[in-house]
Amino acid sequence: MRIALAQIDSVVGDIDGNASRIVDWLGGARAEGADLVLFPELAVTGYPPEDLLLRPGFVRAAHDAVDRIAKETRGITALVGGPRLDTDLFNACYVLAHGEVRCIYRKHYLPNYGVFDEDRYFAPGDDLYLLRFGDVLVGPTICEDVWQPGPPATDLALAGAQLVANISASPFHVGKDREREEMLKVRARDNSCFVALCNAVGGQDELIFDGHSVVLDDEGEVLARAPGFEEALLVVDVDPVAAVGRRLRDVRRRALQRGRERVTATEIELAPPREQSQPVQRTLAEQLSDLEQMRRALELGLRDYVQKNGFGDVVVGLSGGIDSALTAALAVEALGPERVHGVSMPSRYSSEGTRGDAQRLAESLDIDFRELAIEPVVEAFTAALAPSFEGRAADLTEENLQARVRGTLLMALSNKFGWLVIATGNKSELSVGYSTLYGDLAGGFALIKDVYKTDVFRLARWLNERAGRDLIPTSIIERAPSAELRADQRDEDSLPPYPKLDVVLEAFVELDRSREELGRDGFDPDVVERALGMVDRAEYKRRQAPPGVKLRPRAFGRDRRTPITNRWAG
Amino acid sequence: MRIALAQIDSVVGDIDGNASRIVDWLGGARAEGADLVLFPELAVTGYPPEDLLLRPGFVRAAHDAVDRIAKETRGITALVGGPRLDTDLFNACYVLAHGEVRCIYRKHYLPNYGVFDEDRYFAPGDDLYLLRFGDVLVGPTICEDVWQPGPPATDLALAGAQLVANISASPFHVGKDREREEMLKVRARDNSCFVALCNAVGGQDELIFDGHSVVLDDEGEVLARAPGFEEALLVVDVDPVAAVGRRLRDVRRRALQRGRERVTATEIELAPPREQSQPVQRTLAEQLSDLEQMRRALELGLRDYVQKNGFGDVVVGLSGGIDSALTAALAVEALGPERVHGVSMPSRYSSEGTRGDAQRLAESLDIDFRELAIEPVVEAFTAALAPSFEGRAADLTEENLQARVRGTLLMALSNKFGWLVIATGNKSELSVGYSTLYGDLAGGFALIKDVYKTDVFRLARWLNERAGRDLIPTSIIERAPSAELRADQRDEDSLPPYPKLDVVLEAFVELDRSREELGRDGFDPDVVERALGMVDRAEYKRRQAPPGVKLRPRAFGRDRRTPITNRWAG
Repeated sequence: MRIALAQIDSVVGDIDGNASRIVDWLGGARAEGADLVLFPELAVTGYPPEDLLLRPGFVRAAHDAVDRIAKETRGITALVGGPRLDTDLFNACYVLAHGEVRCIYRKHYLPNYGVFDEDRYFAPGDDLYLLRFGDVLVGPTICEDVWQPGPPATDLALAGAQLVANISASPFHVGKDREREEMLKVRARDNSCFVALCNAVGGQDELIFDGHSVVLDDEGEVLARAPGFEEALLVVDVDPVAAVGRRLRDVRRRALQRGRERVTATEIELAPPREQSQPVQRTLAEQLSDLEQMRRALELGLRDYVQKNGFGDVVVGLSGGIDSALTAALAVEALGPERVHGVSMPSRYSSEGTRGDAQRLAESLDIDFRELAIEPVVEAFTAALAPSFEGRAADLTEENLQARVRGTLLMALSNKFGWLVIATGNKSELSVGYSTLYGDLAGGFALIKDVYKTDVFRLARWLNERAGRDLIPTSIIERAPSAELRADQRDEDSLPPYPKLDVVLEAFVELDRSREELGRDGFDPDVVERALGMVDRAEYKRRQAPPGVKLRPRAFGRDRRTPITNRWAG
Repeated sequence: MRIALAQIDSVVGDIDGNASRIVDWLGGARAEGADLVLFPELAVTGYPPEDLLLRPGFVRAAHDAVDRIAKETRGITALVGGPRLDTDLFNACYVLAHGEVRCIYRKHYLPNYGVFDEDRYFAPGDDLYLLRFGDVLVGPTICEDVWQPGPPATDLALAGAQLVANISASPFHVGKDREREEMLKVRARDNSCFVALCNAVGGQDELIFDGHSVVLDDEGEVLARAPGFEEALLVVDVDPVAAVGRRLRDVRRRALQRGRERVTATEIELAPPREQSQPVQRTLAEQLSDLEQMRRALELGLRDYVQKNGFGDVVVGLSGGIDSALTAALAVEALGPERVHGVSMPSRYSSEGTRGDAQRLAESLDIDFRELAIEPVVEAFTAALAPSFEGRAADLTEENLQARVRGTLLMALSNKFGWLVIATGNKSELSVGYSTLYGDLAGGFALIKDVYKTDVFRLARWLNERAGRDLIPTSIIERAPSAELRADQRDEDSLPPYPKLDVVLEAFVELDRSREELGRDGFDPDVVERALGMVDRAEYKRRQAPPGVKLRPRAFGRDRRTPITNRWAG
């Protein structure tokens, strides 16, 4: 039997466009001789559509689109994700064949943790289906269903499924592809079942879907794997009936049946697999290193945000520091140099070194570059504020002012030319609030907001290594980090050194370790004390920050919902 | 039997402070001779604690606080809301008496819609308890439990409860108190049961809890009602045993028992009601008009945001227009004139009228006032951008620039003096994106972001009526709205007239009416077309807006979760 996994990049809300794309790829799968083609979860609406799901007109349009797609299923069966509203609203896998909707599987397990809010929208389903293709029995499931160790996968296997088909929109973090594959290996072995998981790909606001669709046999061996971070049609020949023999030798599953009513599923009769003239070539995309995953995710996230929102060009403020250098370099890889504009906005505190580096970077990246002097603007502000500030010493106010002048200049360029401003703050800064609202946090997209400073350095070196040259000048990578908002300023004057800070942030932000536990974990108590206080106090800044690419298991935002008004200090 | 409802204003995260407050109020209830005192849902942690609940140290601290509170329950029984972590995490009502935790009721129904995310945190409970005070049987429940028409209230009544006690943190919108009371009347009658609902009060980021705790008899008559928008101890004498006789005459409840196992609840024996020397005075706070509810909610929301976050003063940019006038007037009522600073920042487009009105308003409100000229700063920006903008006509860029200069000046005052900037945008503007990011949207709190422009006018007139004078000069109320960002500008040049716009926004934003339906509803098709396109396109601005007080059933933010990347146009 030949199955195809259509790992496509849907656009949230673009129901007509998504339907057309599904029909196109369905045709591609048919041309490859596939008997069955899988599309991602909610492929018709894009994932996650959030509260659009509460608009009845939106769901009706999705129903209509499914009907149109169904008409195109001559000679092939398609599993297509979309919402289903009848007795209630469900997250559904439509089984389309012979021009019609043959059955509708409703997702059993609705994730409502991390970035997920599915209980907000959907009612859980409880029906099971077996799709019969001659001797082959396929059990459809949706995303979270297969992350559960028990039913529906175990029940489908008990009912006779030889292949568990899963349509997913599984949000990315670094290493998620390997976690997902390890989990699927165990599901395949536990159930003596082939498993095929078709994942979405693409960026949607802060989320990335990484693709990496995969097919495993009943011993957990990966038969085929689609590449990450790009659309792909993964075609593979499988013989799941072969699993039946092994099931008779491994009867652990039978213990699950004991003392229960016999598990059954509604059987849907479909066309038997066709004879294939020759076997399909095996696709096994290589797994990517953590750094390469970050790079690909950041580029995909930016490209999709820009394109799906109809922007042309982007603009980045280049300070001569490493954050803006990495941001600009990633933007160039994502969009091409002709769509990236660099702006240097030196002040009296900018060194010759950073000023020259900003220009050298622009030359290295081959992007449009301009320098705008902020000094006269800062002076005009200073004069306007002088009567109010009389007798007061300079403090953070004057530093923030410079950052806001820069933010305002970038926004003016954005307004005039339609460029999207890419903010350059990293996760370490955003964690502790070492950033200026409406200043360096100004912009439409904060590309590297989920990249810790230590990873900013690693990524910059990785980009240079890949390029085989100093794409980002080494002087930028080697200079001690400074905001250059006052004379001789260094980040380490205000913050613990980044290597020490980042490990504490990771334990606190990603792992929810408490102050006490962090003490027991052996972290520098002074760093812990300073970092924790800063993280919770900075929530109000993060709330007004632009969206950016989620790379980590716990990104700020929908992943980590912290009150602003909060006196808990732990 | 005497019961007390302690309608308190907890601070999220301040577990020690909340516990002390609970102990204080518990003492107050004891002094009033109460046999039973109710505290709000999650009173120990504040509501909603959001992802703090995922930090085990936080929940442990809440457990410890409950144990400390329990020790103070000599001669009184207390129902106290807090989280409970044992086999899983529950939203619990601790029943405290005689110095110990007597039982723990776990919330059955977890709201996960609107502003709620309780499925994210809690597992549902399924146990029922009956608290026996001599002949009186009280069934504890938590918030959403009593919004459900069936169990647990119906089951508690079947099991014998004569009084359903409900501890709540029920978020406010205009008119919510009346909806809540209507619902409780029906519950009381359906179950032939007394009902006592103790609601939280106070502001927490965007949410307001309005208090209005209430006690009803089994015929749905309101026996006592606490005031809205302030802390209160509502003490009332009830005789729920009287309900038993009426139950024998109204046996509808018995039909619910038919064909089921007999409903039972775990009975907890508590001290019988004490003899009272004299009956308690009846408290029946009057219900407030919609406008007065808005006013009180806005003032409470601002006051709690300022105080719970440790701010002293606030600063408001005064344009001479009605939005900033209303914002400043509300701030003065919430905080007193000595804590409010007004700043006028006229440009070449500011009329003599608005400039004078800004000053007259400050005088009327008796607040600190200064004027900062923005023209030199705007000119400095214009000069810095001139090489980039050469040959380009003036457009929105130049308008936004002025707004951002003002935002930056306010933020500089905020940084230097520690004043919280109150942004002045209203819901109509925020809906259609008629506002400038980092300009008029800059600030720590956007007080009137959920007030439609037509309500801004109504509120301004209401404030004047209450004051018995032109607190807000009538020239401000009567002038046609203008952003004054270019010559002779009027809002109506860019937007439909507010009365026409607001009704469409209300139908689209609050009621999720689709484009088609709005057409059928008889709204001006041109207004519908313009408004809907603007609303969805402005999502990215709202995402970076400061928090503000939720007044409406559907506020932007956690109430209405819309993707930024979204091609759905309906």
